[in-house]
Amino acid sequence: MSLLTQLRQQNPVVLTVANMVTPADVANGLNVLGASPIMSKAVEEAEDMVKLAQAVTINLGTVDAGQRKEMLAVLDAAEKYHVPAVFDPVACAASRYRQETAAELLNTYRFACIRGNAGEIAALAGCDWQSRGIDAGSGTGDLTAIAKKCAAKYQTVVAMTGESDIITDGQELVEIPFGSPLFAVHVGTGDMFSSIIAAFVALGGSPLDAAASACEVFALCGQIAAKEAQTPSRWYELFLDKLYQASDDLLASWKKELQKEEER
Amino acid sequence: MSLLTQLRQQNPVVLTVANMVTPADVANGLNVLGASPIMSKAVEEAEDMVKLAQAVTINLGTVDAGQRKEMLAVLDAAEKYHVPAVFDPVACAASRYRQETAAELLNTYRFACIRGNAGEIAALAGCDWQSRGIDAGSGTGDLTAIAKKCAAKYQTVVAMTGESDIITDGQELVEIPFGSPLFAVHVGTGDMFSSIIAAFVALGGSPLDAAASACEVFALCGQIAAKEAQTPSRWYELFLDKLYQASDDLLASWKKELQKEEER
Amino acid sequence: MSLLTQLRQQNPVVLTVANMVTPADVANGLNVLGASPIMSKAVEEAEDMVKLAQAVTINLGTVDAGQRKEMLAVLDAAEKYHVPAVFDPVACAASRYRQETAAELLNTYRFACIRGNAGEIAALAGCDWQSRGIDAGSGTGDLTAIAKKCAAKYQTVVAMTGESDIITDGQELVEIPFGSPLFAVHVGTGDMFSSIIAAFVALGGSPLDAAASACEVFALCGQIAAKEAQTPSRWYELFLDKLYQASDDLLASWKKELQKEEER
Repeated sequence: MSLLTQLRQQNPVVLTVANMVTPADVANGLNVLGASPIMSKAVEEAEDMVKLAQAVTINLGTVDAGQRKEMLAVLDAAEKYHVPAVFDPVACAASRYRQETAAELLNTYRFACIRGNAGEIAALAGCDWQSRGIDAGSGTGDLTAIAKKCAAKYQTVVAMTGESDIITDGQELVEIPFGSPLFAVHVGTGDMFSSIIAAFVALGGSPLDAAASACEVFALCGQIAAKEAQTPSRWYELFLDKLYQASDDLLASWKKELQKEEER
Repeated sequence: MSLLTQLRQQNPVVLTVANMVTPADVANGLNVLGASPIMSKAVEEAEDMVKLAQAVTINLGTVDAGQRKEMLAVLDAAEKYHVPAVFDPVACAASRYRQETAAELLNTYRFACIRGNAGEIAALAGCDWQSRGIDAGSGTGDLTAIAKKCAAKYQTVVAMTGESDIITDGQELVEIPFGSPLFAVHVGTGDMFSSIIAAFVALGGSPLDAAASACEVFALCGQIAAKEAQTPSRWYELFLDKLYQASDDLLASWKKELQKEEER
Repeated sequence: MSLLTQLRQQNPVVLTVANMVTPADVANGLNVLGASPIMSKAVEEAEDMVKLAQAVTINLGTVDAGQRKEMLAVLDAAEKYHVPAVFDPVACAASRYRQETAAELLNTYRFACIRGNAGEIAALAGCDWQSRGIDAGSGTGDLTAIAKKCAAKYQTVVAMTGESDIITDGQELVEIPFGSPLFAVHVGTGDMFSSIIAAFVALGGSPLDAAASACEVFALCGQIAAKEAQTPSRWYELFLDKLYQASDDLLASWKKELQKEEER
């Protein structure tokens, strides 16, 4: 049975410690896919929330002192109850404060997966890269080598998303094509993606397989939507609806359609 | 004159102490319907904000220590200035912290209405129920009895929303059909609904009638939108536009259309 | 070269100290137009964030004690690094707390531009006006005189948006028609607009020209979208897509189309 089918049957609860910009995107993405989103701000309920969840996502997007405490409380509980965690290091190179917070989290806890763009993964790996704010930026490094280095450094699976998605545990490598440039135009798709990876990780199998499956579903839905709409707002509406409709059969036929097109 | 027509004429200001996930949904829902949304985070301005408003909504969705203080300040002012309040006990069974916060609010203040799904209302009523995170969950209890018990316990009107909406003050009972399953797929419709009930309550009539009218408008717009779109993102767009267009005549014709269909 | 073309080439980073209701609208508006949004809540990273940015926007929408400190830190850094700042005095007359916060900011820092509706600008200028919550309200004053008074008082450019947009530095005056009433129905267009003005101001030219260019692009996209869709949710989707597609040629042809229509 595919992981997507399992996800729709098990309806895992994903707790996201979210940024303030895109929590609705994250919640709706999880919801249309068949997972169940919860969010919380109170450190007092961190443990109870983690006990409800089958996976958690930590999003660095608008971290401040209060949320930093909440992240630590959630990750403590996740460790205690063996709930896997995904980390989204949003704009982690943009400030010393984010760098330190990311380092504290990564050095204290072990994540099932880190999902970020090339600039964020390069910063975590300690590689040179030119990034700017929340954008991926551009660099000359070998993307695969950077992803592997980051995965090895933190003993985790890295999903580096972009034109192609690169997923690696430091040794094995999966590459998923089908990235659409429209993903970068709608703010919040990255945040949503990290929480969707968590929903796949929640199923309990290998994080590498979970991240690869999530990437394929996400990218296929995005690119098939981009065939129908080339403007970002209309595209985003279609993309969410594709996530909602996606089944193993539909995904297979979309994949065939997109591969045929590429061959032309 | 229908309550909807009154609402469009009076344009009541509704202050929502909102969760961090869906404030834009709440504000847009109020706005397209003809009410005027305001939101605030500062306890320092709670009293001034309440003085501007004709109704307030307290949403438990992402309450933390700071917001708990704000809720208390808003409810103090609402009591002082006789501004009716609606309570949305989002996921109130999910943590001890939420349970305690909900109990504190309900035991200290009298609400005009509580709006929640079956799981939330059952938890407040002290009935057994299997709920999970923000989802309604499933239970075997008699929904009507649970709603009545909750209303009687807190001397308020309960609007329990789901496939059918059940509205009761503990004695009288109104049931509104037309619920669409798409409501549960778009995160934020529940939060929006609670604030829309507040906009109807703001008109000053009976809270039972206000909640029943709000439920009918909300459910009809949702189900007529679901006739045109079966996917959640497109449905949500249409739903908001139906709320914007809704008039007494249109609602009557939509109702006839939906009833005819059901008879087939 | 038009300012819009420059903006798309330079892709300026705009830091918004955002309200909790509409940050996604602000970020997506900047993104589709070709600017790069960043947001932050931590006072610890205020200086680093400002150093990344070519302009900042301060939005008063849901200010509280924590965010007030962040605003001061961001504006201190903006002064230090000569990064221009735009102020959006959301509902500044709604509470004594907002009045005092607005006064503190305006008396301590010099802004490149203030963007608000008639009620907000009148309150800052110290003119009589009847406003209500976040709505513009209605008044009998001479809008142009109010805008000029506000601009002179704070030695800044004022962009007073409404049916027509009035832009002035206290002396020179630009008026942009093409306002659509649908702007007022979708919550968040005003917040987005202030940050888009900041994106134009970021290019380094005269703030008056920047605000006027931003207003024209914004209003044309809004009104051309309103020709295709008369309901707010569908309109908003189209509006964002028009911002994404807008080029000098397209804007010129839309302008001609709208002017022809008006003559009829």
